[in-house]
Amino acid sequence: MNEKKIRIKVVGATGYGGLGIIDLLLGHPNAEISCLVAREEAGKRISDVYPHLAGFCDLPIYAPDAPEAQGAFDLVFFSTPDRVGMADARKELEKGAKVIDYSGDFRFTTLDAYVDYATRLGRDPNHLSPDLLGTNVYGMPELHRAEIAKANLVGNPGCFATSCILGLAPAMKARIIKPGSAICDCKSGVSGAGKKPKPTFHYPERYENINAYRLSGHQHVCEVERELGLLYGGEVKVTFTAQVLPINRGILSTLYGDLERDMSEDDVIKIYRDFYGEGGFVRVLPSTAAVGTSSVRCTNYCDIVVSVDRRTGKLRIVSIIDNLMKGQAGQALQNMNVMFGLPENAGLDRPGMYP
Amino acid sequence: MNEKKIRIKVVGATGYGGLGIIDLLLGHPNAEISCLVAREEAGKRISDVYPHLAGFCDLPIYAPDAPEAQGAFDLVFFSTPDRVGMADARKELEKGAKVIDYSGDFRFTTLDAYVDYATRLGRDPNHLSPDLLGTNVYGMPELHRAEIAKANLVGNPGCFATSCILGLAPAMKARIIKPGSAICDCKSGVSGAGKKPKPTFHYPERYENINAYRLSGHQHVCEVERELGLLYGGEVKVTFTAQVLPINRGILSTLYGDLERDMSEDDVIKIYRDFYGEGGFVRVLPSTAAVGTSSVRCTNYCDIVVSVDRRTGKLRIVSIIDNLMKGQAGQALQNMNVMFGLPENAGLDRPGMYP
Amino acid sequence: MNEKKIRIKVVGATGYGGLGIIDLLLGHPNAEISCLVAREEAGKRISDVYPHLAGFCDLPIYAPDAPEAQGAFDLVFFSTPDRVGMADARKELEKGAKVIDYSGDFRFTTLDAYVDYATRLGRDPNHLSPDLLGTNVYGMPELHRAEIAKANLVGNPGCFATSCILGLAPAMKARIIKPGSAICDCKSGVSGAGKKPKPTFHYPERYENINAYRLSGHQHVCEVERELGLLYGGEVKVTFTAQVLPINRGILSTLYGDLERDMSEDDVIKIYRDFYGEGGFVRVLPSTAAVGTSSVRCTNYCDIVVSVDRRTGKLRIVSIIDNLMKGQAGQALQNMNVMFGLPENAGLDRPGMYP
Amino acid sequence: MNEKKIRIKVVGATGYGGLGIIDLLLGHPNAEISCLVAREEAGKRISDVYPHLAGFCDLPIYAPDAPEAQGAFDLVFFSTPDRVGMADARKELEKGAKVIDYSGDFRFTTLDAYVDYATRLGRDPNHLSPDLLGTNVYGMPELHRAEIAKANLVGNPGCFATSCILGLAPAMKARIIKPGSAICDCKSGVSGAGKKPKPTFHYPERYENINAYRLSGHQHVCEVERELGLLYGGEVKVTFTAQVLPINRGILSTLYGDLERDMSEDDVIKIYRDFYGEGGFVRVLPSTAAVGTSSVRCTNYCDIVVSVDRRTGKLRIVSIIDNLMKGQAGQALQNMNVMFGLPENAGLDRPGMYP
Repeated sequence: MNEKKIRIKVVGATGYGGLGIIDLLLGHPNAEISCLVAREEAGKRISDVYPHLAGFCDLPIYAPDAPEAQGAFDLVFFSTPDRVGMADARKELEKGAKVIDYSGDFRFTTLDAYVDYATRLGRDPNHLSPDLLGTNVYGMPELHRAEIAKANLVGNPGCFATSCILGLAPAMKARIIKPGSAICDCKSGVSGAGKKPKPTFHYPERYENINAYRLSGHQHVCEVERELGLLYGGEVKVTFTAQVLPINRGILSTLYGDLERDMSEDDVIKIYRDFYGEGGFVRVLPSTAAVGTSSVRCTNYCDIVVSVDRRTGKLRIVSIIDNLMKGQAGQALQNMNVMFGLPENAGLDRPGMYP
Repeated sequence: MNEKKIRIKVVGATGYGGLGIIDLLLGHPNAEISCLVAREEAGKRISDVYPHLAGFCDLPIYAPDAPEAQGAFDLVFFSTPDRVGMADARKELEKGAKVIDYSGDFRFTTLDAYVDYATRLGRDPNHLSPDLLGTNVYGMPELHRAEIAKANLVGNPGCFATSCILGLAPAMKARIIKPGSAICDCKSGVSGAGKKPKPTFHYPERYENINAYRLSGHQHVCEVERELGLLYGGEVKVTFTAQVLPINRGILSTLYGDLERDMSEDDVIKIYRDFYGEGGFVRVLPSTAAVGTSSVRCTNYCDIVVSVDRRTGKLRIVSIIDNLMKGQAGQALQNMNVMFGLPENAGLDRPGMYP
Repeated sequence: MNEKKIRIKVVGATGYGGLGIIDLLLGHPNAEISCLVAREEAGKRISDVYPHLAGFCDLPIYAPDAPEAQGAFDLVFFSTPDRVGMADARKELEKGAKVIDYSGDFRFTTLDAYVDYATRLGRDPNHLSPDLLGTNVYGMPELHRAEIAKANLVGNPGCFATSCILGLAPAMKARIIKPGSAICDCKSGVSGAGKKPKPTFHYPERYENINAYRLSGHQHVCEVERELGLLYGGEVKVTFTAQVLPINRGILSTLYGDLERDMSEDDVIKIYRDFYGEGGFVRVLPSTAAVGTSSVRCTNYCDIVVSVDRRTGKLRIVSIIDNLMKGQAGQALQNMNVMFGLPENAGLDRPGMYP
Repeated sequence: MNEKKIRIKVVGATGYGGLGIIDLLLGHPNAEISCLVAREEAGKRISDVYPHLAGFCDLPIYAPDAPEAQGAFDLVFFSTPDRVGMADARKELEKGAKVIDYSGDFRFTTLDAYVDYATRLGRDPNHLSPDLLGTNVYGMPELHRAEIAKANLVGNPGCFATSCILGLAPAMKARIIKPGSAICDCKSGVSGAGKKPKPTFHYPERYENINAYRLSGHQHVCEVERELGLLYGGEVKVTFTAQVLPINRGILSTLYGDLERDMSEDDVIKIYRDFYGEGGFVRVLPSTAAVGTSSVRCTNYCDIVVSVDRRTGKLRIVSIIDNLMKGQAGQALQNMNVMFGLPENAGLDRPGMYP
């Protein structure tokens, strides 16, 4: 109780990613929200923007260059679009802060990998802090816990990528599926697209509507193939489909791969449980489990359902997360806990809200 | 205008499948609803059960064995669960009626195929009218138009199966994908499960919840593999995943297959458009098309989006229908039109309701 | 069948109100859509904007001042915001067209009434065609059928106002409630706010959210008080509350008034049924009726449930419409039918789609 | 930290009310869930019924008469339908437990009041423990804090009643509205109807559907009139309308009353704020506040928006709660805190989850 709290600045505080980390930090025993920064809505209090925070967090929102936002903090979250963190993380690091960035800016540890990613997105491939690449770590604790513990700069994974990587990692590590055969059929709730209104997320357009989008490529493939390739020890290619559903929170990714040899569901479950161990945020379940996105809503859990179609020789994994939690702010908090030597589930040990 | 109308009996009138065909028949220029039959709610008027029909259809509902339901009709729809049509279709046929059955009872044309299907479902494999198998036709006009035109007994396809078969038929016929590689990742609205309340479809349990179910097998695979095998000219195996979404109407099936050789999206689109021709209910679209389940809501259309991932050698098809229309009552009406020599889109030429 | 069709121009064709009338006109036996006009999306086809119309209506969209949009038509719908119709209706009328305007521009027949309305909205009270006021008619056929039949210029009612006026008209005409006691507690689906994305209608903000808005005044009160006052024969005041629900289509208005004397539900039902007669679009139902917004979805009906709380001396009416149909395009088509001497339900005789 | 925890039994543990209190108790610093009881699902673990509880609460569910459920506890929650608590509370009280009952059994403190309530519901008016009536307290801490602190037996209020009473209490106490004029127009999410599937809450029937129900009377009126009458100091009558929306959680009640004299919104706000004070669970807001059911989701707050229509002389209050929290389990926990001398917001000091 008496120990010093981690002093935290949140940049991009008014988006769903910023709100998510604020909500979680308010319930964290060792954290103190010290400064909120956002380009829009600066000058208001955060509880003006999100009335449900009234009485819990009434801090002012500062513009990025406001004098009040220039102090030294222990940790800075960049819950910002691509190209903000790469411009501004350095000065935070130089002031002694650790940095967790939500965007693609620090999810790649080589310039080549970043250029490939930015090019696929049709964006400026010119990274503004190339020298920081290599000092950063990909923030998925289940795969990189030890490096994250030592890192000052962490790139928080994408939401789709999180569900795909966690769902296929043990299979790739054990080399039980063919490395070019993986298919990621991903369905996301609308909150994954952020807070800004757009025609396709206007209520009357989205109600009763599920659709696939950007079929010719999606940026998350880069992260997925890189991480799975590291585990496999060789090149991995995935076919990726992004789909949006008329729900708010939740990603359900159905993942397929061609089995190298005939295996039973139990064989695969054992491989998965050995990989993840007990007590973490990944729960490995048999094909009879009655789980869905509501099972993980508002939690940091990833539920992984294992199924084998021996008739066709396919492995099928259903990987379920809350896109705003394990897919974003929850994983960011988990990274914070690892970086600061705290119990990994500090501030995340809640069972969710149901129904 | 002066010609005699088709006199129709609907068995199972109070379920969603019965309601669907009533709604459509009310707008059909050549049809007359002559008799409504249902086990439950007999004695009420159909507009007591569905108030929106008041003034449009106020016919009484008869029990199956009521004297008023024993007349001779031109056409009988069995919108009933498995094992009803196989027991009762014969006497309708003997009275000179044509029969369209919604269940699995007449989707298979050999006893072996039926037994395989029933066994997968864990049901009684004992068909009650095995001699009728072989006289029946699978009611998918895009594949069996000429046979349906001559048939007296038609098995209306399953909703998932319709989306999968239409989505993969041209590829299988042209043998551009490997016959064991097909994956059908299917997402359905809740109405596909019918009218009867169940815990998993109780509003608070279903809201914000998507889940996969019955991962170890699903009856629709039988139909899909049989139809695709006929087109391919050899054994076809598919890996099938059924998922339920918190929407009412709509199926979106994302279908994958390993391409036999490198092809462009345009190459595949040409094959698909040649297969389906112009002006029917299947619309073949490029990967940039902005369509979703709302594009086909309340219509008999199947929208098929073609995409090729040349990097991984996969064909990807997004196949979209309204499960209660092209997936059920709409296709049943289309079959009726073919069976009675009417324009195939009679009573189905509406653009849907949007938003 | 051989008679000449009504040639129609739709201004504001790409909004929900324009789309609604296009959908209905496509199914109307005497109408021909001749020209589509919209400020945005001009140059595209309407089926580019609304893919579900492909094959049903592929007309080009013209800018308001395009040469192709300057012809003479039999009827022009202005599905446009306030201040468009008042500027452009005159030239259509001078070319011999009849005009139906969806906005507030022609819902008032005196300049004073218009100024009061615009002032409440905080808008420019300067009407651009004051001389047309008085030649126009309020387009609610249940109240003004004879005048609409002779009118060239009709102001289509607001959606909230339609539900309130139809729900209270018989009570006010029969003077069974006190004229200052009426309360209109109105709940609307999101489509009533139109097609343009806004923060409060962004899917994640609207899901699971019902709220009241603009509590200090709402423009629909003017229409409601005027129409009810005409029926009552004296000043009527209503307390009006607008609320938005996370549904797409539908308005349910719960209306209350202090009864002048003790009456039974049957007494009130008789008054209401005498007022509306048989066979029209208003259905008067007892308090035990199991109806909701889904009962009128995609139809032009108004379901009115009558209930009396004799313990408290209150009349309570539940008035239910589809805001895009009886609340907008459906009523506009009904007005067209009256203006052109057609059966009032032409193109509107459908039972809706359920579920 | 070292103090002895409150040992708690939850009867009716598998319904939404039982689940709600389990969820809250898991986060309460002074509570220990000692025993779970339910008639259905006995023999399973609670985490079998609600998988999201796995690892947080895996207690077995006992049948009511199981030996393991007969111990002595500090507190027993009866989250059960009417007539369970009245039969079983006595033996818990005799063993020294305090009791909080969710049903109507102990919401009335005289037999006459109970009989009136049961009669309205058309139920058995024979109370099984009439001698306990009078020892019980109505569990609304904002009105009865001191009595609850001394009580052993508390009747937790109904969800609709909570929103109505909190919304009108200050106005009645200050006698600013006429006692027979109050109207309660209440809209609830579906979870208020409980966990048991019913036709009207089947997803396809409920989606896009709002309806009013049981127009001829609703049991909640009894509580509302009694509590408001106590505050007013005389008979109060309310007109009550219950409506169901296609959302999961949330009640929004719009309340109307005839003002005794002209007052401004500020005048009324002052009366309300003086009544509720600072820092509690009731937040009094002006008519411009942008709040809805999502503002209180998953919290114990009641947001009260004050508005005055001086033109019509009406007071209008919008009262918003989460029906499962302040409307049920949240208020039950608040009562527990008061009964055990704990801070009133212990275990309830969370800002909710958004979006």
